[in-house]
Amino acid sequence: MIKAKARAVDGPDKPFRVAEINRRDLDEYDILMEIKYAGICHSDIHTAHGEWGPVNYPLVPGHEIAGIVSAVGSKVTKYKVGDRVGVGCMVDSCGECENCQKGEEQYCLKGNIPTYAGVDRYGEPTQGGYSTHIVVIEEFVLKIPDNIELDKAAPLLCAGITTYSPLKHWNAGPGKKVAIVGMGGLGHMAVQIAHALGAEVTVLSQTLSKKEDGLQLGADYYYATKDEDTFEKLTGRFDLIINTVSASIDLNAYLRLLTLDGTLVNVGAPSEPLSLQVMNLIGHRRSFAGSLIGGIRETQEMLDFCSKHTIAPKIEVISADQIDEAYERVLASNVKYRFVIDISTM
Amino acid sequence: MIKAKARAVDGPDKPFRVAEINRRDLDEYDILMEIKYAGICHSDIHTAHGEWGPVNYPLVPGHEIAGIVSAVGSKVTKYKVGDRVGVGCMVDSCGECENCQKGEEQYCLKGNIPTYAGVDRYGEPTQGGYSTHIVVIEEFVLKIPDNIELDKAAPLLCAGITTYSPLKHWNAGPGKKVAIVGMGGLGHMAVQIAHALGAEVTVLSQTLSKKEDGLQLGADYYYATKDEDTFEKLTGRFDLIINTVSASIDLNAYLRLLTLDGTLVNVGAPSEPLSLQVMNLIGHRRSFAGSLIGGIRETQEMLDFCSKHTIAPKIEVISADQIDEAYERVLASNVKYRFVIDISTM
Repeated sequence: MIKAKARAVDGPDKPFRVAEINRRDLDEYDILMEIKYAGICHSDIHTAHGEWGPVNYPLVPGHEIAGIVSAVGSKVTKYKVGDRVGVGCMVDSCGECENCQKGEEQYCLKGNIPTYAGVDRYGEPTQGGYSTHIVVIEEFVLKIPDNIELDKAAPLLCAGITTYSPLKHWNAGPGKKVAIVGMGGLGHMAVQIAHALGAEVTVLSQTLSKKEDGLQLGADYYYATKDEDTFEKLTGRFDLIINTVSASIDLNAYLRLLTLDGTLVNVGAPSEPLSLQVMNLIGHRRSFAGSLIGGIRETQEMLDFCSKHTIAPKIEVISADQIDEAYERVLASNVKYRFVIDISTM
Repeated sequence: MIKAKARAVDGPDKPFRVAEINRRDLDEYDILMEIKYAGICHSDIHTAHGEWGPVNYPLVPGHEIAGIVSAVGSKVTKYKVGDRVGVGCMVDSCGECENCQKGEEQYCLKGNIPTYAGVDRYGEPTQGGYSTHIVVIEEFVLKIPDNIELDKAAPLLCAGITTYSPLKHWNAGPGKKVAIVGMGGLGHMAVQIAHALGAEVTVLSQTLSKKEDGLQLGADYYYATKDEDTFEKLTGRFDLIINTVSASIDLNAYLRLLTLDGTLVNVGAPSEPLSLQVMNLIGHRRSFAGSLIGGIRETQEMLDFCSKHTIAPKIEVISADQIDEAYERVLASNVKYRFVIDISTM
């Protein structure tokens, strides 16, 4: 066993505490990674608070992980000690089903193994990146391009791929009008990626408070959804809307913003069901879809794309002692735009 | 003015009565059609009963219309007297918007002009096919292939195109697993078309009462949705589900039957909003979409496709005096599979 220092929670309402966790000894295809930075994703909060179903506590969240390879198993070929690497939302999958074979491991028919709050192939609970070390099989480890700093690389592993994948899948690009709902951790990545893909980009945010940032990151237009006029003005405008907001939205109002054959894609799931008037789909052959992170091959493609286009998240680096406070600020939408834990403070 | 005999209703709860209506004198691009047969669509009933919003009574429904050209305007080039022709759900559109230019007149940005319960370009109310004659501009008139009898052609103009269009749009064909929800007027057409397109076809109907017909029309599998097992057994199976049922369904149960990147398409709109758990979309990048009839060019393509593959609806021909009774039987799902009015009894 390899000992790692971590920050864990013991229950839905508990604060983070210092913990020591075990990482497995390296199997032949395993990589030991010394974690340098871990992003704080809204999913971490949902899971830590038990809002997405029962959790086996203690829990160590974190699935936006960047660091350095510090040891490799005997048969590892992709990486060597010293490489700059990342781990995202999953650490394993069956590798054999139709979806895994297509490189869509996130949709593994047996269920992918999430980076934390899952059970690994040895039957042990998985624990995430709020920790000094992690052991992952090489196929689920990403190479971080040289020109992306490790602290800024971390959020790409979830916020980056979660928005890159649907933008690519639904063909955001030149001639396409794309709207991004929400200007948070995911939204501010989606704006940059959609812009780099060549689409016309519009941000739909509750208020105009982050408008300057939005335009600076590549948005062509920026509207406040609190303004009634917005929905009137933009009716039938967009080919693609990426909704990064997990809270319930007025789905029907957003569907009406789509043009013929337009698609609204949710990348977050509100816990409550949404109410949908089917006529809003039928009237213009619109679609409402969902998308889950991205496959490993596509995650590497996203990292290389961000490297090429010098795309990076705007982050606020915090120490391990500040996680509880950071959670509160995320819930209050008081972060520009992603908290990243400096693991050296662990 | 051209006088036509018709059957009209005077209010949501009123029976049909004999009526005389006016059709406009032929404009240069108009066609006068002597109607031979008119199908009864569930939409006729919704509209006649005022369930889809306020209606200006008296109303003459009917948008599955087959007959013979009996006069043409001075500049008509597509048709001549004696031609076998049809008219479907719309009789006009702006012709200038982006969607009309693409041949998707059903999605006209100014709104297509429905065959009945609409207002035509002269400001007059449109009245449908439960009548002896109709005047329509030639662009909205379809040619009925010689090997399709007129009584069987009528239902193709709505039930046929409404199912053909989404099957083609979402690429039903060899290697694709397609489910048809509902084995009624639309469903029994969808089965035949999907089969002729080369897809594997499954019917999902409330009971197995129409199983024999379904298999004879080309279904490979037939399941009862009343059987709890069905949803368990078919999880993740289909690439495409066409839902022909207008009543509210358990959307989430059907979404779970889709495979990765599968799409559930509603061609009818329940009046109540549906409840949707977004996780059912996200988990396998599924889509929920809607589709409205089809464009004029595509409707002609559908007629030619049915001609080539000898596809036809199963119909029950009734006299004009039987419309009220037929409505009751449609509402009780007691028809195999489409009522068609013999207009000679008008």
